[in-house]
Amino acid sequence: MNMDCEIITIGDEIMTGHRVDTNAALIAQQLTSIGLEVRYRSSVGDSLEAMEECFRLAMRRARVIITTGGLGPTDDDITKRAIVKVFKRNLIFHEDILEDIRHRFAERKTEMPAINQNQALLPQGATPFPNKHGTALGICISEKGRVFIALPGVPFEMEQIMLDEVIPYFQRMNIGTPVKMVSLKTIGIVESELAELITPELSLDRNIKLAYLPSPSGIELRVIATADTDSEAKERAQKTARDIEGAIGHYIFGYDKDVLEGVIAQLLMDNDRTLAVAESCTGGQLGQIITSVSGSSKYFLGGVIAYANDVKINQLGVDSATIDQYGAVSAECAKEMATGCRKKFESDYALAITGIAGPEGGTDDKPVGTTFIGLSSIHETYARPFNFGTLRRINRTRAVYAALEMLRREILDIKEN
Amino acid sequence: MNMDCEIITIGDEIMTGHRVDTNAALIAQQLTSIGLEVRYRSSVGDSLEAMEECFRLAMRRARVIITTGGLGPTDDDITKRAIVKVFKRNLIFHEDILEDIRHRFAERKTEMPAINQNQALLPQGATPFPNKHGTALGICISEKGRVFIALPGVPFEMEQIMLDEVIPYFQRMNIGTPVKMVSLKTIGIVESELAELITPELSLDRNIKLAYLPSPSGIELRVIATADTDSEAKERAQKTARDIEGAIGHYIFGYDKDVLEGVIAQLLMDNDRTLAVAESCTGGQLGQIITSVSGSSKYFLGGVIAYANDVKINQLGVDSATIDQYGAVSAECAKEMATGCRKKFESDYALAITGIAGPEGGTDDKPVGTTFIGLSSIHETYARPFNFGTLRRINRTRAVYAALEMLRREILDIKEN
Repeated sequence: MNMDCEIITIGDEIMTGHRVDTNAALIAQQLTSIGLEVRYRSSVGDSLEAMEECFRLAMRRARVIITTGGLGPTDDDITKRAIVKVFKRNLIFHEDILEDIRHRFAERKTEMPAINQNQALLPQGATPFPNKHGTALGICISEKGRVFIALPGVPFEMEQIMLDEVIPYFQRMNIGTPVKMVSLKTIGIVESELAELITPELSLDRNIKLAYLPSPSGIELRVIATADTDSEAKERAQKTARDIEGAIGHYIFGYDKDVLEGVIAQLLMDNDRTLAVAESCTGGQLGQIITSVSGSSKYFLGGVIAYANDVKINQLGVDSATIDQYGAVSAECAKEMATGCRKKFESDYALAITGIAGPEGGTDDKPVGTTFIGLSSIHETYARPFNFGTLRRINRTRAVYAALEMLRREILDIKEN
Repeated sequence: MNMDCEIITIGDEIMTGHRVDTNAALIAQQLTSIGLEVRYRSSVGDSLEAMEECFRLAMRRARVIITTGGLGPTDDDITKRAIVKVFKRNLIFHEDILEDIRHRFAERKTEMPAINQNQALLPQGATPFPNKHGTALGICISEKGRVFIALPGVPFEMEQIMLDEVIPYFQRMNIGTPVKMVSLKTIGIVESELAELITPELSLDRNIKLAYLPSPSGIELRVIATADTDSEAKERAQKTARDIEGAIGHYIFGYDKDVLEGVIAQLLMDNDRTLAVAESCTGGQLGQIITSVSGSSKYFLGGVIAYANDVKINQLGVDSATIDQYGAVSAECAKEMATGCRKKFESDYALAITGIAGPEGGTDDKPVGTTFIGLSSIHETYARPFNFGTLRRINRTRAVYAALEMLRREILDIKEN
């Protein structure tokens, strides 16, 4: 069964533009992934009247409505009040929900503020969707062939309920159409080059859509196929993905939910190898990304954040003459950092990053964004030069992923550019 | 004159969630800054029918309508076609606009693709807004006391036209009202506790709005005041902010665009002090956040990512007996990590974080999220226990900001809880 969807994001901070509406994108992605079409998207402030008007319009024009925001315990969280007015239902107090909230506060050894009692009120006849990370439950109301779902606005709470509750609920109710998405994760190539390599290989029919999603950790290439049956959609998506792989194979580090740090984790564990890092301009971000993988203690030993030159010299054994001669941002320094790091931690591999993140510190010779990444293994030590652009926030992240990609290619012995 | 506004963002990539809608936030901020109320926000895909429906609804309910997207030269850019249908006007060809576009291509020494001729077509009676960075003009139609403005979707093109053309146009037309926002940045207190402390202090009139924006780095509290004059709005916002400060003063680390890592930077520089870090569960994130501030090399020396216990022992001098007796996640270990780090780097302060980020590794005694943060200064060394919840991504970020907050309170000698 196909049904038009509407996403409604709630909050004054959305209407004033003080918060970018990332929730709507996340919900839209989830709905699209099960073949639902988001036909309407709207936002509304924390005003009862505006919310009612918005909900009523949605109930007239859409069949599946998902709202996010306004379910917190404070006065400006009035989504439930708008729901009971639009659906003409009372709020019912649930003792078991309150017990559960109290229990959570007790676990965190804090007393539950009285205001949280509001969280135990639900519109009559609504199905609650549990919230693993917060006290505001999701609310599901089914009426007149329409499904109205209200989710909290805190992104990670909303996301958990969306994935664990809402999508399975739609699947049980058989809401959606056959669609299959295959996602190819690439790194080390820009969007226009990717498009030039891919386009000649493809004869896209109208059941296949291609989307490029660039980010500092690489470009995700999405192949989205629709069909009459699940297996047909799957076959179509996979065939197109294979054609693309033929053209850009070694730029692909993974598929779908793969992240480069997870691929690295698997490679290191498969080969029973360990890793340590030495970071200057990234200040710890490489270590942070590596340890964002749970279980990373199996292969990641640790690192040195060598921000000051003294730390590079004293902790990593970089020769002060190297810094004097070539500068701290140089291939030579990156190599010595990597070697020193590998020896210090007795690891199989070490990665080192040194660069000019900016906005200060650039020169004609080495403008902001200039970065050298060193890699040391038992067999060899080398460094590669990069320029990751002038934006501090972006160039540091790009440096981290470029370092991980160097390690992936080293382990897999990939020589092509 | 006050007028309800509607922002409409256009494009399939918005509806599928493949692009986050940053344009809407930017336009909303601009409108809010001149006291216009964005009452409606909606998005629509690249479908003529859907766009017409959306524009017609906007013309019924709003007085100022701004759309963005769908003005490019390619086939899927159909905003102008929807406009001429809704407003029942013809597209008129403007030779001078085409000349200008040709001229731009000539300047870039490229030939103008024929498809760009579309860009010289404007709805009859529309006022064009020049685009400094691209070929798609902004379009302004005034009809029946309503203003309808269509802008291109490329963010920096849209932003330039918004700032240079749209806002000055509204000011000339006397559209807008005085408004002032003050933002209080807090940390170390949850939303409901904050609300309980604040509410008794306030007698909010309807010209003052309060918004809570929680994130893993703390809660931002926004005071937004409207009035008849700019100075009155400012006075009103500042008075309310002062009342709130009286109630929650020591939880406030900054104002408006302040971030905690920036406040720490200023405190360390003002006091001529240096900092080093020792990180276990956060894996480098504390260092990363500290060094996200440009110029951090003035006070940040570096750190040790002590992920493996051996690293804690060998690099930071933690006693192996301490780990045997209390565990690596303990106040004792956090203190020894902090002391060892401060000595190693010869810094004035050291922060150490050790915890169970999860999802594995929790026990009844120390569930996932248990974290100890150590602080060492020349005067004293201590550690505090926390539980930051079960989500690895979130609890690590919360640990980083809690550590920075401990340092802020240490430097400022804040004793209250």
